Amino acid sequence: MALGNWPISVELPVQWGEMDHFGHVNNTVFLRWFESARIAYFQHLWSEGPSSEAVGPILARMEIDYRLPLQYPDTVRCEATVTNLGNSSFRMAYRLFSEARGDVIVAEGDSVVVMVDYRSGKSVTLTQKLRTAIEAVEADG
Amino acid sequence: MALGNWPISVELPVQWGEMDHFGHVNNTVFLRWFESARIAYFQHLWSEGPSSEAVGPILARMEIDYRLPLQYPDTVRCEATVTNLGNSSFRMAYRLFSEARGDVIVAEGDSVVVMVDYRSGKSVTLTQKLRTAIEAVEADG
Amino acid sequence: MALGNWPISVELPVQWGEMDHFGHVNNTVFLRWFESARIAYFQHLWSEGPSSEAVGPILARMEIDYRLPLQYPDTVRCEATVTNLGNSSFRMAYRLFSEARGDVIVAEGDSVVVMVDYRSGKSVTLTQKLRTAIEAVEADG
Amino acid sequence: MALGNWPISVELPVQWGEMDHFGHVNNTVFLRWFESARIAYFQHLWSEGPSSEAVGPILARMEIDYRLPLQYPDTVRCEATVTNLGNSSFRMAYRLFSEARGDVIVAEGDSVVVMVDYRSGKSVTLTQKLRTAIEAVEADG
Repeated sequence: MALGNWPISVELPVQWGEMDHFGHVNNTVFLRWFESARIAYFQHLWSEGPSSEAVGPILARMEIDYRLPLQYPDTVRCEATVTNLGNSSFRMAYRLFSEARGDVIVAEGDSVVVMVDYRSGKSVTLTQKLRTAIEAVEADG
Repeated sequence: MALGNWPISVELPVQWGEMDHFGHVNNTVFLRWFESARIAYFQHLWSEGPSSEAVGPILARMEIDYRLPLQYPDTVRCEATVTNLGNSSFRMAYRLFSEARGDVIVAEGDSVVVMVDYRSGKSVTLTQKLRTAIEAVEADG
Repeated sequence: MALGNWPISVELPVQWGEMDHFGHVNNTVFLRWFESARIAYFQHLWSEGPSSEAVGPILARMEIDYRLPLQYPDTVRCEATVTNLGNSSFRMAYRLFSEARGDVIVAEGDSVVVMVDYRSGKSVTLTQKLRTAIEAVEADG
Repeated sequence: MALGNWPISVELPVQWGEMDHFGHVNNTVFLRWFESARIAYFQHLWSEGPSSEAVGPILARMEIDYRLPLQYPDTVRCEATVTNLGNSSFRMAYRLFSEARGDVIVAEGDSVVVMVDYRSGKSVTLTQKLRTAIEAVEADG
């Protein structure tokens, strides 16, 4: 079982309106991009989308390092990977590349995703089916 | 002089987080996409970006018809064109196409952009240079 | 039956991050504020929230006039009213006041809200119950 | 010198449109609220706003723990404090309270803010004036 293979990648244009008064892409936008990579990953795990089931993933923690400022125009590529499987949670990492800056990493993130029963709000154990699905996605990376 | 040729087009992925509680792309996101097409158009008119000058465009009015709801995943294409040149303003129209819906129009917009002196806040007459630049962009459409 | 009484009002702080590169509140944010006033109005019509029913409102059209630019810090007040009841739709108007500018109107909006069956996507006739509820909200204005 | 006194507090209404498809306030919105508390703090440090100077603060790192989901309607209070002064950076912490949940903490954050020269992009040493200003804000907490 090998994790951390960065199997998922989404490409997104920087939109002018994502810049704030400082003339840089606002810090909240990076989390939107991380989310888009995370959801693209989830599409491989829950074909109907996570919201259609009684048990699903929630974001419990995020760490983000903003390494370089971004500006419009640019195109970013956000990669995601699962780096660790816990009992009822797993870790996902993210890295963001800027085309305008020559494809260097401009931000990195690390998050904890917990599987919860949406009705009770309680965490639930990762199923073997989910573990296998994650490993299959990583094996394609 | 022929306007309304839809010379500008931007393609944007629908992001999961752009959907609201109803499960459709939120109404505000359409204006962000229209803005992205408008700014792409402006890139042809002001090479340094409109904000670098003392006189620049501001959005004074927007009309938008939401024709069909959008959902993730999808890719939209937003087209923009100038349809009329006034004394100190011009009209821009927008149309938005959904790939997932077979490239049909899902929203249309019409706006008034006024040229203002950012220091005084007063509108200023469109320069001949700007008129010519807009006509050149439309001629390429 | 008297409509257009502006019975609903929400007060919202301008957030610094709502300004774009031009240093003004971005045009999309005004629609978010209109939406907040619209939803506050809807809270009076559907106590459980519109999304809990099979039939509900969708925004079909929006017109907005941006009269004055806004900046952080400021507090805005957004008022909403129903101005007309149609067969399967109704019109809602919005006006936005800026505290920093001495409580003047900085933007005005007009929209068409259509009642649709979410499963079929078809519009449905306004129920008498809904008409009465709207009139009751306006009568309190 | 005592830091970590939570001197700054901003109160913000949860807007309906800030919820995503899961029916909870989207993870990016929490960073917008943290930013609003951070900027409110900065207003005490740079009366003209940080962007008006050649040297200013940038967000270099953010950690956030999402403890409880939020829904509309609610009002949140976001508090901010500086917890440590470094050579060219300082740490700011955030905590977010939900009125609807009985004023409990629903999210906590920790960030690194670096002082940079906007022209060169290089970090610069915290001035004694800035250190004194931060200590004065904390002393009022």
